[in-house]
Amino acid sequence: MIKCVFFDLDDTLHDSSRLARLARRAALHMMISKGLPVSLDEGYSRLVRIVKEKGSNYPGHYDLLTEEIVGKRDYKLVSAGIIGYHNTKFAMMQPFSDTLPTLIELKKMDLALNILTNGRAVKQWEKVLRLGLESFFDNVIISEVVGHSKPDPEIYKSALDIAGCAPGEALFVDNSLACITGAKQCGIKTVLMNRERQQAPSDCCDIVIDSLSQLPEAIESFI
Amino acid sequence: MIKCVFFDLDDTLHDSSRLARLARRAALHMMISKGLPVSLDEGYSRLVRIVKEKGSNYPGHYDLLTEEIVGKRDYKLVSAGIIGYHNTKFAMMQPFSDTLPTLIELKKMDLALNILTNGRAVKQWEKVLRLGLESFFDNVIISEVVGHSKPDPEIYKSALDIAGCAPGEALFVDNSLACITGAKQCGIKTVLMNRERQQAPSDCCDIVIDSLSQLPEAIESFI
Repeated sequence: MIKCVFFDLDDTLHDSSRLARLARRAALHMMISKGLPVSLDEGYSRLVRIVKEKGSNYPGHYDLLTEEIVGKRDYKLVSAGIIGYHNTKFAMMQPFSDTLPTLIELKKMDLALNILTNGRAVKQWEKVLRLGLESFFDNVIISEVVGHSKPDPEIYKSALDIAGCAPGEALFVDNSLACITGAKQCGIKTVLMNRERQQAPSDCCDIVIDSLSQLPEAIESFI
Repeated sequence: MIKCVFFDLDDTLHDSSRLARLARRAALHMMISKGLPVSLDEGYSRLVRIVKEKGSNYPGHYDLLTEEIVGKRDYKLVSAGIIGYHNTKFAMMQPFSDTLPTLIELKKMDLALNILTNGRAVKQWEKVLRLGLESFFDNVIISEVVGHSKPDPEIYKSALDIAGCAPGEALFVDNSLACITGAKQCGIKTVLMNRERQQAPSDCCDIVIDSLSQLPEAIESFI
């Protein structure tokens, strides 16, 4: 019987990838309007490559972009990019439309809910608070704090400890196949959140859903 | 004859101190609403002390505040503080009411205008852009980029070089007596921006004003 659900955050409870695309295009718009000599599409492609090379938590994406395009770090253009990115991110961040209705249903089923996410603690908490999700969750478990990242089995063990939950009573919901695999190895029941309905191996997880609204029924199938 | 004016940014062109007070009180409001066990006034006093001790560019004011009050760094509360601070700062940042009318007058007088400010380059540029001031200024000269800070005479010499202006043709406007002194040592004419009408030594500068709108007339007195 499932007593406890662990949710991934980014791209599971809110559309993190779409938000990042929007915010980065807004950053380019601002930088171009302040003089960066590049087309929107080319600048965006370069920025995406830099983010891929350096990782999303690297603090100098726009510095590198201006160095590439104008031959030196241009602080005005860097600031313009940061303004465009932040304004868009904070204005547009919201849960998926099925997130809150589903969380309310799960609370009515008396389930303990937790977030289990990779990332920097302050950044991940900022998203939880800005999304207005915090009251639904007993614990927000973040890789930076635990000292291990998904899909390392250690983070799932720590998460079970923190939530006071046995593996057989736990369900893990994530959009990442790799993270699902780590949870499976710990004996946790797994749900792949597959909004894009991409091809996934049939044995990858216990259940595949394409909307969070399918989750209450999926959980009842385990009881 | 004055050809070129250098303006300080913070507390000269916009009300930086008031904005910081508002934003820090908003940060405390958010932290308390998310569980920080402290009164608004006591929390605010502690935060102000931490900012004073560590400097305003230190990145961990809220971390230290939670450590002090709850005995450990609390990422949720830190994030709540950052959200309150940033939301307020970005919503409320605006030039003084006399800033834009005065800058327009000075442009009509064919003066070259520059900003000369202490601080981190990306942060100072972000303010210039968010305040909508950038089109008025030929140069935004920032201590981090120059490698010297006001009142070190070197930064005024660099500023004159960048602006292509002789000391005798330059005017420097700042709310800080210390920064005025540095400019005077370089032979630059000086205007103390004294909005609060505080006591100032009579020989501290060439002219004292309490509103930027007095600046065009003051400049004509030098011609």
